[in-house]
Amino acid sequence: MLFVGELINGTRSLVKEAVLNRDADYIKGLAKSQTEAGADYLDVNAGTDPERETEDLLWLIDVVQSVVDTPICIDSSTPSAIKEALKAVKSTPMINSINGDPKKLEEFIPIIKERDCPVIALCLDESKSGMPKSVDERMEVLERIMAATRQAGIRDDKVYIDPLILTVATNQNAGNIIFDCIKLIRQEYPETHIIGGLSNISFGLPKRSLINKTFLALAVAAGMDSAIVNPCDRELLEILYATELLLGRDKFCRKYTTAAKEGFVNKK
Amino acid sequence: MLFVGELINGTRSLVKEAVLNRDADYIKGLAKSQTEAGADYLDVNAGTDPERETEDLLWLIDVVQSVVDTPICIDSSTPSAIKEALKAVKSTPMINSINGDPKKLEEFIPIIKERDCPVIALCLDESKSGMPKSVDERMEVLERIMAATRQAGIRDDKVYIDPLILTVATNQNAGNIIFDCIKLIRQEYPETHIIGGLSNISFGLPKRSLINKTFLALAVAAGMDSAIVNPCDRELLEILYATELLLGRDKFCRKYTTAAKEGFVNKK
Repeated sequence: MLFVGELINGTRSLVKEAVLNRDADYIKGLAKSQTEAGADYLDVNAGTDPERETEDLLWLIDVVQSVVDTPICIDSSTPSAIKEALKAVKSTPMINSINGDPKKLEEFIPIIKERDCPVIALCLDESKSGMPKSVDERMEVLERIMAATRQAGIRDDKVYIDPLILTVATNQNAGNIIFDCIKLIRQEYPETHIIGGLSNISFGLPKRSLINKTFLALAVAAGMDSAIVNPCDRELLEILYATELLLGRDKFCRKYTTAAKEGFVNKK
Repeated sequence: MLFVGELINGTRSLVKEAVLNRDADYIKGLAKSQTEAGADYLDVNAGTDPERETEDLLWLIDVVQSVVDTPICIDSSTPSAIKEALKAVKSTPMINSINGDPKKLEEFIPIIKERDCPVIALCLDESKSGMPKSVDERMEVLERIMAATRQAGIRDDKVYIDPLILTVATNQNAGNIIFDCIKLIRQEYPETHIIGGLSNISFGLPKRSLINKTFLALAVAAGMDSAIVNPCDRELLEILYATELLLGRDKFCRKYTTAAKEGFVNKK
């Protein structure tokens, strides 16, 4: 399981404050704790107005890279910001994200191809209004994205497909849509990865971490192999170890028993 | 989800002591707490030597029925003990259990047919040595059991199939075997129920309740609809509510949000 640490995101109020005040220590803390928890990438999202986004993003990347070597997941919808960020990163980053918007695909795909970096592909078309409602709508957008990445010669295993997790609070079938989508993606595009922002599933509901961790178990069993999460969430790590154990991926239960002994402090 | 409360079992040392000392209060406590937690049946297993099993089982049933109305799940491998217990129970009990042993089937099936009561059918043949190893072995035994129950006119929905959960500690694929088995049973015998002794999955491993609850989520997603559990295990209840929510079985998230407000104290 690959984890993208989600904590350095300017849409979170404490991070926004730190960005605006250039509070490097707060950001360094998030970079270190997520790295210690086993994050494979650190998502970095400035979350500020377009006119200052590039500058803030570069500052964040600098601060993160001053304390950890964990690769960055550049999270922006502005191609120029991504281009600048690509010059600043020390190791191959992940790009978050492309979607079915033809204009965006045209802008982003050459960048991804050139840097040969992994990319998150949202099953969503930004150029159309509204979120995808069904499994079919998601698969239809995905088909166009995959046609574009394949045509550009981007290998399928560089693509991290995000089926777009939405909350069950407003749609009783939000979970099933994702499980069905994951199973279809596994069939249709077996070499790709499947990722998602886990915590979206529980938006607006009580005891969110309970829903998130249960969702992680069910999504991993369906075929998800990566997630955008708070990697410091101990309960999430516990369930992940137990899920991998139960799915036959833990020889002699070694990973589980070692992690249990250590108190499930990180993902290895 | 149907829960059979597992706590009144003479193979547990405190229960055995209570049975031998005729400590009715201890048994009453277990009957009440499991009922309050939402158990649909209370498993009652004397766990004593064959020569005194019937007497102990009848005492246990009497004690349980003196405090709760929850139906009994008569847990014995002795037909004569079951016959006596059937006379003592106030409401239709569940019988735990039959298996592929032809002699046992011959003895038990007329009893079940006569009383028209639900029965747990283990995917195991007691007349052969050893536990079933594969999915195929389980399905082969099950085929014979289902042929026998159907021939006797026992409706499929009276049969609670137990695929025989064994620990992942000694077989890395113990979880997958059960998930595959559940999916096959759902296809082949859609009207039956699928049950299992959840906690077997974690035997010999640390943090058992973590493994048990994760297993519950994955097994329910695969198609299990009942379980033999400690219904007072709050963490198990939490995960069950979250799982039902994520599988689209909780209209307007009403059950989940109500249970969360109450602290997930029971299954409803």
